Amino acid sequence: MRTRAAIATKAVAPLEIAEVELDGPRAGEVLVEIRATGICHTDEFTRSGADPEGIFPAILGHEGAGVVVEVGAGVTGLRPGDHVIPLYTPECRECEYCLNPKTNLCQKIRSTQGQGLMPDGTSRFRTLDGEPIFHYMGCSTFANHTVVPEIALAKVRQDAPFDKICYIGCGVTTGIGAVINTAKVEIGSRAIVFGLGGIGLNVIQGLRLAGADQIVGVDLNPDKKPMAERFGMTDFVNPAEVEGDLVPFLVDLTRGGADYTFDATGNVDVMRTALESAHKGWGESIIIGVAPAGAEISTRPFQLVTGRVWRGTAFGGARGRTDVPKIVDWYMQGKIEIDPMITHTLSLDEINKGFDLMHAGESIRSVVVY
Amino acid sequence: MRTRAAIATKAVAPLEIAEVELDGPRAGEVLVEIRATGICHTDEFTRSGADPEGIFPAILGHEGAGVVVEVGAGVTGLRPGDHVIPLYTPECRECEYCLNPKTNLCQKIRSTQGQGLMPDGTSRFRTLDGEPIFHYMGCSTFANHTVVPEIALAKVRQDAPFDKICYIGCGVTTGIGAVINTAKVEIGSRAIVFGLGGIGLNVIQGLRLAGADQIVGVDLNPDKKPMAERFGMTDFVNPAEVEGDLVPFLVDLTRGGADYTFDATGNVDVMRTALESAHKGWGESIIIGVAPAGAEISTRPFQLVTGRVWRGTAFGGARGRTDVPKIVDWYMQGKIEIDPMITHTLSLDEINKGFDLMHAGESIRSVVVY
Ligand SMILES: NC(=O)c1ccc[n+]([C@@H]2O[C@H](COP(=O)([O-])OP(=O)(O)OC[C@H]3O[C@@H](n4cnc5c(N)ncnc54)[C@H](O)[C@@H]3O)[C@@H](O)[C@H]2O)c1
Ligand SMILES: NC(=O)c1ccc[n+]([C@@H]2O[C@H](COP(=O)([O-])OP(=O)(O)OC[C@H]3O[C@@H](n4cnc5c(N)ncnc54)[C@H](O)[C@@H]3O)[C@@H](O)[C@H]2O)c1
Repeated sequence: MRTRAAIATKAVAPLEIAEVELDGPRAGEVLVEIRATGICHTDEFTRSGADPEGIFPAILGHEGAGVVVEVGAGVTGLRPGDHVIPLYTPECRECEYCLNPKTNLCQKIRSTQGQGLMPDGTSRFRTLDGEPIFHYMGCSTFANHTVVPEIALAKVRQDAPFDKICYIGCGVTTGIGAVINTAKVEIGSRAIVFGLGGIGLNVIQGLRLAGADQIVGVDLNPDKKPMAERFGMTDFVNPAEVEGDLVPFLVDLTRGGADYTFDATGNVDVMRTALESAHKGWGESIIIGVAPAGAEISTRPFQLVTGRVWRGTAFGGARGRTDVPKIVDWYMQGKIEIDPMITHTLSLDEINKGFDLMHAGESIRSVVVY
Repeated sequence: MRTRAAIATKAVAPLEIAEVELDGPRAGEVLVEIRATGICHTDEFTRSGADPEGIFPAILGHEGAGVVVEVGAGVTGLRPGDHVIPLYTPECRECEYCLNPKTNLCQKIRSTQGQGLMPDGTSRFRTLDGEPIFHYMGCSTFANHTVVPEIALAKVRQDAPFDKICYIGCGVTTGIGAVINTAKVEIGSRAIVFGLGGIGLNVIQGLRLAGADQIVGVDLNPDKKPMAERFGMTDFVNPAEVEGDLVPFLVDLTRGGADYTFDATGNVDVMRTALESAHKGWGESIIIGVAPAGAEISTRPFQLVTGRVWRGTAFGGARGRTDVPKIVDWYMQGKIEIDPMITHTLSLDEINKGFDLMHAGESIRSVVVY
């Protein structure tokens, strides 16, 4: 079939909107009509050429929601008409990783996914000239139709709006999951969130949901304050306005250090500050941000010997097929908010504008609606 | 009273054996006759002048065992004749730290202990000329008699030999506790231990006790192999004999990386290797070694984002008054071994020889018997 897509033809270049050829689903695969997709920093990381593992030409996008159109042989858990969210971290429920309760990093289709291919080692996308186009993170939601393995689709309720729940495909789950699955924050905790962008705001609402007593937000951009307060931030700190070192200031503000700190900036110096402002004895620091290629974190080992713990999280530690439908429910029940974070809605033709808004720091999330 | 002690008169100098004046125990304190004491790297760290926080003159030693001689006012949990092990990490059971199950770092007397003083801000030790001598780590076991706060004494069974259980005051508990309290190693785990000295061997026997399936020992000194095997090591790796990078070699050997890795070298490059040879998704690396002042650990944050966890441990995460008596029981029951690790027994007059043996790498533990 033919469908419309935004193609990353090569690094740095703007995406090109064009018709592409899409093959039907093979065994274990599902054809999905994407109804909406968010534009995330990870898409930009690849588009901009910063990702050393980026492959072109590819159809980017990994934060979508849509409807099942057709299922391939052997697909038993989904059928046409089901509403789904594609998962860049699949959940096969049978690999060594899925069977270990400590991780969500299903490895079943990892190597082909990393090569921009479906599990059988081929691509379903072609240009109208017949040149293959690579998949991206197993999702390629910047196409109106895409093919995704069944194990990489979360089935969600039918009354949830696509243009909001698409954000659960990455940002919402990453932020809330970092709190709930990775840190396992307890009621009454004190926490510090570094970076109040699309991820940080979701960490903040995750902390509110988990019953944290103090939620400190740290951002160089004071414009981020009102929105973060709306999601539950109790204290705002602009590092540019702190006299002296930031760590002792934050330790003081949290009465000895925070029980949990989160980096949602991707800056390795911030990651160090986050670790060191965690409480002696038990404070845990969780890295969510993705650092530039080659950048390293460092600290004195004494920070760990005296009881701080350094962790990271990918996709918020969520097992997508199990956890994503629950987060959709929380949204529909009003336990969490999404609408105020979707600051811009665009058509596919306007998708490059979404990247411009991201760079200008004007959007929290831009969503493309097909 | 007068007692004999080894005094660290100044940094670098050998210890001086001399008579000293010791005041009786004040409120909450206990006079202990030390019967045996181990010589640990931390004593040497201070003696050598490497510890930027070292204070002189002081009576070092923090790995002892002895008998209660006299108790001060208000001491209710101990009486003369009780056998005790002094604790450099006390357990008051009422500070914010003791009440938090995630840490063992009781802070009740931390500031005075760090200043080489008893909790009331004074020292019990003086030279015969009346010059004050500082306490060390709240223990000062390099004196035949010492005064220790009640909250820093573990009461142990009377049939356990002092010249063996003194080692439980630091090395044994640090190594075994790192496995049991900090890592919480599960039966069937794969583990790597870097450094097969006095701490590493105890990590190894802790892993055996916890039911680990694979216990890889890594040391540059191949002479460490037979003893480590005796304590449960299943595979020995000498980094000098590995062609190419050590991390992929160890990941291969442990079939994808170890569930738990432990640094017992104090070398920050080894700490990085330990983290990176932990299993993707769930591997945890525990820092036990104490690094040189100012040294830093580093890695790419991706190592944590893909599921590895970086921790540290002090005194093996043990709550001394609660856990040390249990470890003494394990020794008496034959669950753990200590005797083969006590390679040298010395008199107090020979204590400087103990430091020489440590430097020559000839001893695992030298114990001074009074
Ligand atoms: N681990 C995962 O699974 C995962 C998933 C999605 C995104 N991410 C990463 O999370 C990070 C945040 O993403 P986002 O969409 O929220 O980005 P964003 O640009 O919307 O937000 C980043 C925020 O950090 C602030 N900031 C930048 N430098 C700062 C500093 N030095 N101190 C304080 N604040 C600073 C910015 O002002 C901005 O508000 C990115 O690195 C992204 O790649 C990780
Ligand atoms: N965290 C705590 O509570 C605590 C308590 C006591 C001791 N420690 C620390 O634990 C560390 C180990 O103490 P120990 O008494 O076992 O010391 P040790 O000298 O007896 O043993 C160290 C071992 O590491 C080996 N080694 C050195 N460099 C190496 C390298 N690059 N690769 C592989 N092996 C290497 C040595 O050959 C030696 O066998 C020290 O740093 C000590 O200060 C920590």
